[in-house]
Amino acid sequence: MIFKLEATDERARTGSIHTEKGTIYTPVFMPVGTQASVKSLDPKDLTELNAQIILGNTYHLYLRPGVELIKDFGGLGKFMGWDGPILTDSGGFQGFSLGRLMKTDQDGIEFTSHLDGSRHLFTPEKVIDYQESLGSDIVMPLDWCVELPNDLDTLKTAVQRTTSWAERSLNVKSNDQYALFGIVQGGTEKTLRELSAKQITKLDFDGYSIGGLSVGETKSKMYDIASFTAQLLPEDKPRYLMGVGSPEDLFESVAVGIDMFDCVLPTRSGRTGLAFTWNGRINIKNSKYQNDNNPLDPNCSNLSLNKYSKNYLNHLFNTNEILASMLLTLHNINFYQELMRKIRDNIKKGTFNEFHDLYITKL
Amino acid sequence: MIFKLEATDERARTGSIHTEKGTIYTPVFMPVGTQASVKSLDPKDLTELNAQIILGNTYHLYLRPGVELIKDFGGLGKFMGWDGPILTDSGGFQGFSLGRLMKTDQDGIEFTSHLDGSRHLFTPEKVIDYQESLGSDIVMPLDWCVELPNDLDTLKTAVQRTTSWAERSLNVKSNDQYALFGIVQGGTEKTLRELSAKQITKLDFDGYSIGGLSVGETKSKMYDIASFTAQLLPEDKPRYLMGVGSPEDLFESVAVGIDMFDCVLPTRSGRTGLAFTWNGRINIKNSKYQNDNNPLDPNCSNLSLNKYSKNYLNHLFNTNEILASMLLTLHNINFYQELMRKIRDNIKKGTFNEFHDLYITKL
Repeated sequence: MIFKLEATDERARTGSIHTEKGTIYTPVFMPVGTQASVKSLDPKDLTELNAQIILGNTYHLYLRPGVELIKDFGGLGKFMGWDGPILTDSGGFQGFSLGRLMKTDQDGIEFTSHLDGSRHLFTPEKVIDYQESLGSDIVMPLDWCVELPNDLDTLKTAVQRTTSWAERSLNVKSNDQYALFGIVQGGTEKTLRELSAKQITKLDFDGYSIGGLSVGETKSKMYDIASFTAQLLPEDKPRYLMGVGSPEDLFESVAVGIDMFDCVLPTRSGRTGLAFTWNGRINIKNSKYQNDNNPLDPNCSNLSLNKYSKNYLNHLFNTNEILASMLLTLHNINFYQELMRKIRDNIKKGTFNEFHDLYITKL
Repeated sequence: MIFKLEATDERARTGSIHTEKGTIYTPVFMPVGTQASVKSLDPKDLTELNAQIILGNTYHLYLRPGVELIKDFGGLGKFMGWDGPILTDSGGFQGFSLGRLMKTDQDGIEFTSHLDGSRHLFTPEKVIDYQESLGSDIVMPLDWCVELPNDLDTLKTAVQRTTSWAERSLNVKSNDQYALFGIVQGGTEKTLRELSAKQITKLDFDGYSIGGLSVGETKSKMYDIASFTAQLLPEDKPRYLMGVGSPEDLFESVAVGIDMFDCVLPTRSGRTGLAFTWNGRINIKNSKYQNDNNPLDPNCSNLSLNKYSKNYLNHLFNTNEILASMLLTLHNINFYQELMRKIRDNIKKGTFNEFHDLYITKL
């Protein structure tokens, strides 16, 4: 993996990540394909929408269908019919949030499956192996993520453990066919973020992630910590803010130098009737759209999506048609792709702040 | 609408129906788009799968979103983003099967909505008006459909009423922008089928439908009555067997001269895990497919569908992914389209019987 920084506009950056499976232009939003499917989307839709990279969740894939099955098939991309690059998480976060946590110590995280209660121990070594089996292009090491707010001791332990696990992860990386990112923890404590960033950036990772945010803290706190942490990370490596976010989150985080994002928001919202548009959010289930013949977003550049009217989409949700989820998810992912493309263009032109200010007023 | 009979092979026929919105090659299977959506399919998928015509259900569209709303939008095709021809039913059958029947007499069918219990009177005149509002290309008159088996008096009443309603329907047809089909009733009584066919074919319809089958009778009885009724219908008009059917039903009905079919089977099966293939039916949820890396149907001509393996599809059903319904519905509609295309080709070549016999053994 090669990262090239191409232009900056104050702290905002645009560049490209070159992988064997294709080039990713940053800042980039990665649609989430939790269980080997970006929910409600055909893999060919992702290609048509110019998705550059998608995310898979190791915890879910480990439980179903199993990483060995996917390895035997030739990797996650082949299994799900996606030719582009894939980033996988370590599984630790879902093990923590979805599984009933049984035990955690320096060794790893033991949890019970949210499906059948069976016990599973995720160690740093195992999750590297799992992600190698998945054929991931960008791999995340096991980290120790805690909810916020939290006490200082717990946050300190999270930093220590994350660093120790980062070292163990690097030690077992078996080949150069994938990139491995370090993860910075430290909650909302700037001294701990500083410590964690120092420890993690000393290790030779291909990129750096900011973890442990968007887990209960306020928005302004999240922006503050993301901003503080981003400037502790090396210029010449991609920076990934995990699990973020909304269109305004992306704007604020790009502004402080973040390059990569993932979030279930556009896909989940697509299934519940919430559309992101250039004029703000629309809850298409609202009865006021029952007689609205206009397209969802007159400023949407995707003509094939613009042929559907608000009353048609309202009708599809009203009648529980699967197509409702399909079309609104397509719309939202398309919007996120357009948003990131425009952000990249504006950074190149040195007009990111104007673009940011123009859009933020419309929310 | 112009129908051209192009070739026959014993009683099997192939031809074409020319409408303003496109040519339909027969025998044809029409995917069902009950509520302005062929369930789990994007309208662009229907075009890619070479669907020639789709069906809409007047009863459902009348209740939600309402025929006036669709009329204001410019018709059902525009509303749902489908450019090709559309056939709509009269709504009588769903009013009968889904609604709690309140009253029926010579005037029409009164039923209560399955959604909110509100009362609605469907008369022959009203359902023509509704379908004109929908902008349908092939319109069905209100008919009186009864379940089977049934007593002779009820079957006789169904025939009389259907004929009377057919006359009233022709009287209110306001323009030539759509075709109107007559419907033959008579249950499993050949004398009544003969009477109904005589009465209906005396009227100047653009095509003729066989109604009142696939409503409780045995398969062999259905084939027998379809065969008997088909030969009572004029050679120079299309013949439509309503609500049928499975791949074997299509084979047996084409063999006796039927030209048009509709059924929810391929779409509904797609959502429940049943795939139709050239080697018979597959329940993809079966655990034996968990480790099967092969495509669903190696004989499927659609390469983009063939890239998905049985274990991937099994995994998608196992994890309740919406993509499961999407891909299996695509597969099934593609299979039905291929089946009908091959049937047409074999009729042209005079090899329909050989093709029929070869396929029937694989079921």
